[in-house]
Amino acid sequence: MEGEDHLAFERNKAQFDVDAMKIVWAGSSHAFEVTDRMSRLVASDPAFRKDNRPMLGRKELFKSTLKKAAYAWKRIIELRLTEEEAGKLRSFVDEPAFTDLHWGMFIPAIKGQGTEEQQQKWLPLAHKMQIIGCYAQTELGHGSNVQGLETTATFDPKTDEFVIHSPTLTSSKWWPGGLGKVSTHAVVYARLITDGKDHGVHGFIVQLRSLDDHLPLPGITIGDIGMKFGNGAYNTMDNGVLRFEHVRIPRNQMLMRVSQITREGKYVQSNVPRQLVYGTMVYVRQTIVSDASTALSRAVCIATRYSAVRRQFGANNGGLETQVIDYKTQQARLFPLLASAYAFRFVGEWLKWLYTDVMKRLQANDFSTLPEAHACTAGLKSLTTSATADGIEECRKLCGGHGYLCSSGLPELFAVYVPTCTYEGDNIVLLLQVARHLVKIVSKLGSGKKPVGTAAYMGRVEQLMEFRSDVQKAEDWLNPNAVLAAFEARAARKSVACAKNLSKFTNPEEGFQELSADLAEAAVAHCQLIVVSKFIEKLQQDIPGKGVKQQLEILCSIYALFHLHKHLGDFLSTGCITPKQGSLANDQLRSLYSQVRPNAIALVDSFNYTDHYLSSVLGRYDGNVYPKLYEEAWKDPLNDSVVPDGFEEYVRPMLKQQLRNARL
Amino acid sequence: MEGEDHLAFERNKAQFDVDAMKIVWAGSSHAFEVTDRMSRLVASDPAFRKDNRPMLGRKELFKSTLKKAAYAWKRIIELRLTEEEAGKLRSFVDEPAFTDLHWGMFIPAIKGQGTEEQQQKWLPLAHKMQIIGCYAQTELGHGSNVQGLETTATFDPKTDEFVIHSPTLTSSKWWPGGLGKVSTHAVVYARLITDGKDHGVHGFIVQLRSLDDHLPLPGITIGDIGMKFGNGAYNTMDNGVLRFEHVRIPRNQMLMRVSQITREGKYVQSNVPRQLVYGTMVYVRQTIVSDASTALSRAVCIATRYSAVRRQFGANNGGLETQVIDYKTQQARLFPLLASAYAFRFVGEWLKWLYTDVMKRLQANDFSTLPEAHACTAGLKSLTTSATADGIEECRKLCGGHGYLCSSGLPELFAVYVPTCTYEGDNIVLLLQVARHLVKIVSKLGSGKKPVGTAAYMGRVEQLMEFRSDVQKAEDWLNPNAVLAAFEARAARKSVACAKNLSKFTNPEEGFQELSADLAEAAVAHCQLIVVSKFIEKLQQDIPGKGVKQQLEILCSIYALFHLHKHLGDFLSTGCITPKQGSLANDQLRSLYSQVRPNAIALVDSFNYTDHYLSSVLGRYDGNVYPKLYEEAWKDPLNDSVVPDGFEEYVRPMLKQQLRNARL
Repeated sequence: MEGEDHLAFERNKAQFDVDAMKIVWAGSSHAFEVTDRMSRLVASDPAFRKDNRPMLGRKELFKSTLKKAAYAWKRIIELRLTEEEAGKLRSFVDEPAFTDLHWGMFIPAIKGQGTEEQQQKWLPLAHKMQIIGCYAQTELGHGSNVQGLETTATFDPKTDEFVIHSPTLTSSKWWPGGLGKVSTHAVVYARLITDGKDHGVHGFIVQLRSLDDHLPLPGITIGDIGMKFGNGAYNTMDNGVLRFEHVRIPRNQMLMRVSQITREGKYVQSNVPRQLVYGTMVYVRQTIVSDASTALSRAVCIATRYSAVRRQFGANNGGLETQVIDYKTQQARLFPLLASAYAFRFVGEWLKWLYTDVMKRLQANDFSTLPEAHACTAGLKSLTTSATADGIEECRKLCGGHGYLCSSGLPELFAVYVPTCTYEGDNIVLLLQVARHLVKIVSKLGSGKKPVGTAAYMGRVEQLMEFRSDVQKAEDWLNPNAVLAAFEARAARKSVACAKNLSKFTNPEEGFQELSADLAEAAVAHCQLIVVSKFIEKLQQDIPGKGVKQQLEILCSIYALFHLHKHLGDFLSTGCITPKQGSLANDQLRSLYSQVRPNAIALVDSFNYTDHYLSSVLGRYDGNVYPKLYEEAWKDPLNDSVVPDGFEEYVRPMLKQQLRNARL
Repeated sequence: MEGEDHLAFERNKAQFDVDAMKIVWAGSSHAFEVTDRMSRLVASDPAFRKDNRPMLGRKELFKSTLKKAAYAWKRIIELRLTEEEAGKLRSFVDEPAFTDLHWGMFIPAIKGQGTEEQQQKWLPLAHKMQIIGCYAQTELGHGSNVQGLETTATFDPKTDEFVIHSPTLTSSKWWPGGLGKVSTHAVVYARLITDGKDHGVHGFIVQLRSLDDHLPLPGITIGDIGMKFGNGAYNTMDNGVLRFEHVRIPRNQMLMRVSQITREGKYVQSNVPRQLVYGTMVYVRQTIVSDASTALSRAVCIATRYSAVRRQFGANNGGLETQVIDYKTQQARLFPLLASAYAFRFVGEWLKWLYTDVMKRLQANDFSTLPEAHACTAGLKSLTTSATADGIEECRKLCGGHGYLCSSGLPELFAVYVPTCTYEGDNIVLLLQVARHLVKIVSKLGSGKKPVGTAAYMGRVEQLMEFRSDVQKAEDWLNPNAVLAAFEARAARKSVACAKNLSKFTNPEEGFQELSADLAEAAVAHCQLIVVSKFIEKLQQDIPGKGVKQQLEILCSIYALFHLHKHLGDFLSTGCITPKQGSLANDQLRSLYSQVRPNAIALVDSFNYTDHYLSSVLGRYDGNVYPKLYEEAWKDPLNDSVVPDGFEEYVRPMLKQQLRNARL
């Protein structure tokens, strides 16, 4: 950083070792080192400039993304980066691109669902990017419900081929990233039909474009689906539409690891367990949770720094106005988001462990933990992405009017983040999956089968139904056991209440439908408990560094007590706590905010984000906001000329009362 | 509408007279007629096309806005539209432009703060648009706190002039719409300094640009502040930056209705009451509340129609999937927003009455209702705009993935709406003003001075502190008195609790600071009570039309019970209701959703929005969504060519392993 540090006075207040906290945030010294090195590599290379994105038209924007993607790949090769380093580099380029789908969906789909032979054929091509692939699942009329897809893949035994076809308009593939303009290949999901029988949805490798002239192959119609939310955001991505008119592919391009079509057209299952696909789902959702903490922490970093820079009101004698971060209303909105960023970080870390554990078990044919792992990743995906989307927008509002400028970085961050609430499982649909799992657990409680993992607390349901919090003074809420017990009791009682209400319906499915709003609330209670308990578990580990653990303890309490206050209705109506205890939690929360205050800047410095990555004038490390905002303004294309284009044709005739004759 | 109506089967279910509801929504037959005529005038004129906005670069976008503004003005003159009609026409053009500030801020400022003489000089010029004006108040470093503005206007008795100056970088005017590229004049707010004494912030009419060549006058620096949130949204507006280098204006360009500077440089007050400015504030905020209902209803209309079109899951035997509007989770998110749109409509209507009442009183030197009117408009501005911003985004999510496309209309609606939460008083700052008012009322309760207007219920505080709801079964919650009593008791007890906690502080200001998060919650409780009670009052009027009143009663109950459920913690912790009663409210809510369901499409048809105004493929009146989405996609500039710009330079070398030699 050059020049004066306008936030030095804030940094000097910190009561903990920021370097040690950086390691905790990154997950390990190794992770910190790689992350730090890759982020600086990107930040220092002008080819990765991104501040001009909002001003570019769609075509220019897209072209610049192609350039950056090619350049990034060139650097990855030149520097012989490892897979880990390459992934980090791409994430710091921080621009949605076709490569995300190629590396993140196309290759993993072939790895997960392709036979050994198929992997040997396709993966080397994909790894060298001699082919570029995407993941064509969703259709114009079909998103959440994969089983409702309409595209067909009909086996023709005469030629030993599949005929891929889009029978209706709503069966057009719609949304796949990288499809619209770039991908040469796709994994296409289609209903497998052989001998007139529909075997449900399967994946097929389909070449889309010629490797010579990049034109769509015969029978294939492809295009971009048009502009999306935000100035830059996902408009750098060619989300596409794709239609097939009886397109033929060889039989060996069906992904056949789990089920196969024989030369004769017989449908057979392999001995590979189908449950392996759930393993992939756990993996993808774990990544999403970890990304949630990243996105939220970026917004929080910007809002926290600018809240320390910005001053409003409170100057009585011509002195400086009050820093807005000193206002309790600002703290009560900002600090719970700061705490959430850390909370999501640690629950994401734990999910990484869970994924490894699940995969180990799957390989040993142990499917016992799968339902629980599936429910808990689904729920955490929902909880963390909804909270992050709302949290980013809240951070934008916390920056006042200037948060509305693209140069604040927050509009872009929001627009690029929000689809996460919808893709990989709509957040409400996911909560209902969790609720279904919870209700099932409750129904089996009498059977002697103990619930496992994050649902283990339900095994103590009788005790939890009797629970009454014994908190007597505000500080009692700092005890993790007090917090945990209240969250467990609330979650258990919500689930039990739902199960009880469901039992009043003769048709259980009808009851589930009717009570689904309550069921979603029960799922939220369960998921918040997981986040709280994983944060508490993290704090039981040895955490080195002066003051680091103390800061995390404060953040953990803030996360828990903020949600206790926000969902007070739950805690009171289930009788877990009394109104007085709720009020004590609120008092404690205020005092925790005061404890975070001097450490706030250091706590966001611990994320170790470069100014390039934040891409925010308001969130600059050095706090030198106003001169830079002023400087930034003049870069807008409208400022290319003093008198704007259109003045002569449209404004002058107005001023001169000559509109009648103007050609408009 | 041409072609088949794909939603006809929904429209046939309606149990009320849609035409009669349209009149209720519009406010009167006259208002309906004007609104309907102007909206069709705009919709039928291709010059007002707006679906291409997201694809335009900043310069093209801005130029097209200048063109539309000139064209609209030409039509207004040609058709000899009344002021009411012209205003409606501009609102249906639905594109932020410099004219908004000219008509909405510049002219009203001169009317409200200028002397008779000043009005006679400036208003005719402004009314003919021979000059174009903006409203230059906020500065780079100063938003909410008007008293903190730094720009100075120093009187120079030698020349009988004011010297307008920007002494610091942070004093640069920043944000004023219409300033950046178009306005010839501005009302500039600056600290009035005469004889070395600072008399605080006053308004001055300052010419900014030459009426000949449109160049900034000497000493004046102006530019656009750059891109803002969203693709189109406020990027059609030239929000500007402005600096003065000792710019001289004649003394008679200070707006002198309330206070004056004499030829000798003496500062004198006129006999016009200063409180008149608060009247303007009530007016502006009333408009904002009414606009909130418009913005929210647009989003709800889109989401409701598309929820009836869209089907997901639930097809057991190859039949049609379930319409998503039939899912309870969808209803539980969508219908409260539908109810809110109606609720905000009626509270906006009432605010219009309040404004007239306040102005009448002010002119009779009766300032007694002013604090109450001020608090209640501030609170309602905050409540309705926050709910609307969140509600629009919720509607976008309710449309699934397709809501993320610009062609859904929702991203644009959100991006253009959200600044409303910040401008004209930051929503949290406003809540604290309400809270201050409430605490003051509580502190005076013993004095025998009865609270008035929307705070009148506080006069029954003793009774409200004793209140226990007598609801025994779910249907009891349909009784408006049961609802009103619970909301009154909750609001009163929140205020009293805050006042009690404040009294524990020796320094009241410090206490207010410390407890501000609780105080904001008390303000929300008060404002929600106002919305509920004004809705109930509306229903006590005679409302003609078959089934119309019944539908509104259902919506009123949904609004109230939804908020009771959402803020259950408030109602339980203050002891107004029991957990059992809370649970009954929730049961009643579910049954109300079922009652709304068959009327949902008709209830959004009642807003009478044209497809042009909605500008949403998902919200089309005829429900013909998928073919139009497909058609829309091909209009994107990226689809101009099959092989995208940049393929040869960046993608081909990647595919052909020739990146090493590529120039990137």
